[in-house]
Amino acid sequence: MRSTSPMSMSMSMSCQIVLHLLFFIASLFSTHASSLCSKDGSVVRNISEIPSGNYGRDGLSHITIAGAVAHGMKEVEVWLHTFAPGARTPIHRHSCEEVFVVLKGAGTLLLGSSSSNSPGTPLEFKIHANSTFTVPINDPHQVWNTNEHEDLQVFVIISRPPIKSFIYKDWSMPHVAAKLKYPIFWDEDCWDSPKDEL
Amino acid sequence: MRSTSPMSMSMSMSCQIVLHLLFFIASLFSTHASSLCSKDGSVVRNISEIPSGNYGRDGLSHITIAGAVAHGMKEVEVWLHTFAPGARTPIHRHSCEEVFVVLKGAGTLLLGSSSSNSPGTPLEFKIHANSTFTVPINDPHQVWNTNEHEDLQVFVIISRPPIKSFIYKDWSMPHVAAKLKYPIFWDEDCWDSPKDEL
Repeated sequence: MRSTSPMSMSMSMSCQIVLHLLFFIASLFSTHASSLCSKDGSVVRNISEIPSGNYGRDGLSHITIAGAVAHGMKEVEVWLHTFAPGARTPIHRHSCEEVFVVLKGAGTLLLGSSSSNSPGTPLEFKIHANSTFTVPINDPHQVWNTNEHEDLQVFVIISRPPIKSFIYKDWSMPHVAAKLKYPIFWDEDCWDSPKDEL
Repeated sequence: MRSTSPMSMSMSMSCQIVLHLLFFIASLFSTHASSLCSKDGSVVRNISEIPSGNYGRDGLSHITIAGAVAHGMKEVEVWLHTFAPGARTPIHRHSCEEVFVVLKGAGTLLLGSSSSNSPGTPLEFKIHANSTFTVPINDPHQVWNTNEHEDLQVFVIISRPPIKSFIYKDWSMPHVAAKLKYPIFWDEDCWDSPKDEL
């Protein structure tokens, strides 16, 4: 039997303490993650208490008001997006309907073609508070806060959640080269949560 | 050949004038109806320019922001509803998802059961500006502006438009006795317009 020196005992004890500490910290994080990712089954929710974040997108604040991953929605999903001046979505397309309602600010909707090989030079439409617009299924588009001083805030409604987005580097990129982003940025953290299907 | 008296000529002429007048009035109405009911294909729409009405519902102001009948939507529909103090929806159910976002005011959501024979005594939930709630598919419900002084304004999002609603006289009415209201009040005027299917 190998003797244990006081020094090694002390090291083993400190290792245990460090391990306990690590487990404790890990458990804190896991509790935090699981509470963040557990489905919110409340009937009425206060929008200001729903987690918001930029999910790696500069100048974006995103809130899922009602979503597939967060609330078990199966047919529609509702977001609140706030774009800082200059902020914009990627150029992207998706095979679901999408309705925007502009609550605050102003900006530009860029709309490319889905019938040519690539989106091509997009059409530009001015958007403003109290306006609404619908993006046709599969049309490549981008929403841009082109206002230099004010946030652009919109409700976004999509069908068939969770959304599968195809992202373009630029307007000349062929449709077939657009890259699938699934899950979408804000669904990534809780993607492991089980999702009911119809 | 039968002679025509001046009197009968004059009557025939006045008949013709009256007929022309009637056709003219009818054409005015039909132009008005067709312009009201023609699909609005504009990409960006100003919400304050979209027709609003109460469609026979006391204390309601309804606007279809994006709809199947008005705009050719196939998977989602978005409404803006303003309820005067005391105004409420009928007790009703529908087999689609529905999300509410409360923009202004406060009120009560009443939610009955879909699993018993009738809705039964409903659960009551307070709703308020900046809150959101989702009505489970087929749950009988009623939204009521219980605030005595302020309008209740909500965005309503439904899936699978156009909506088929089943209306109850009261909370004890059996589910099977609830009466189908299809098309819904605000879709009635333009129901003849052709609707694309997926």
